[in-house]
Amino acid sequence: MSPIGTEAALHPDVAPLAFLLGTWVGEGRGEYPTIESFAYGEEIKVWHVGKPFLAYGQRTWALDDGRPLHSELGYWRAQKANASGQWRVELVLSHPTGIVEIEEGVVADTTLDLSTVTVGRTSTAKEVTALARHFEVHGHLLTYTVAMAAVGQPLQHHLRAELERT
Amino acid sequence: MSPIGTEAALHPDVAPLAFLLGTWVGEGRGEYPTIESFAYGEEIKVWHVGKPFLAYGQRTWALDDGRPLHSELGYWRAQKANASGQWRVELVLSHPTGIVEIEEGVVADTTLDLSTVTVGRTSTAKEVTALARHFEVHGHLLTYTVAMAAVGQPLQHHLRAELERT
Repeated sequence: MSPIGTEAALHPDVAPLAFLLGTWVGEGRGEYPTIESFAYGEEIKVWHVGKPFLAYGQRTWALDDGRPLHSELGYWRAQKANASGQWRVELVLSHPTGIVEIEEGVVADTTLDLSTVTVGRTSTAKEVTALARHFEVHGHLLTYTVAMAAVGQPLQHHLRAELERT
Repeated sequence: MSPIGTEAALHPDVAPLAFLLGTWVGEGRGEYPTIESFAYGEEIKVWHVGKPFLAYGQRTWALDDGRPLHSELGYWRAQKANASGQWRVELVLSHPTGIVEIEEGVVADTTLDLSTVTVGRTSTAKEVTALARHFEVHGHLLTYTVAMAAVGQPLQHHLRAELERT
């Protein structure tokens, strides 16, 4: 979906996530016991329409021939959790592998930590049972890691990438 | 996410869904016992990257002032179910309301019928328990209906829209 409506004022409920806004491009590396390690290019887009969520789209490609690999589409939400001023974050995601997931966590300054609350799978999807994500933004650099429990393997490191805001 | 890679050949697994590809614009009407009926404008984009899924994005807006209403992002998948040649369809969707859902169903010619297999909700999402969707494409006209069970109400008609391929 094309980013649209970004001329609207940012909704105050997602102000703590504003550091994610923009288009990010970079490279990452994936590994898992059941597959060969791989390097990938990646683009992440985060946009808003003035409502209390951010829209999120991501795609990766093989560095050798540019063929598309993974992609994800979804939304970010946030809410002030309590009087301490900490913000809780919700991420709802669809994967073309037939997986939907809800991750929840916290945002502190420009660092996000989220883990799976719910995973849903279509009849033909592989068994993914949990994910945990860490995002950090410093200036124009976004770094993330993803841990995954899938196909009988326990939760463990799966992806790491660095992207720059374009 | 911008549609990308549409110069790739369509993957044969999603050929039965090719009639959905494109950008569709039109209007719809929503009703539900707990809210006032409303009319909306809508854009749907369906694109592919040569892999065995279609990407899907949708957004609606109020007809009076154009303010954004709902949106959805996700993916379509399909597979031949059995020797009868019928294709089963899977739809994975994220909603900015904090809902993820998996719908499954069948495609026959250019008609799709899907219903909810799984709904996931974030901690702050409203209670949506089931959806059922019907899509029909005839030439450049796409018509859909959505039934919904939510906030204690049984599954019932919620949305109907007609869109034209642009």
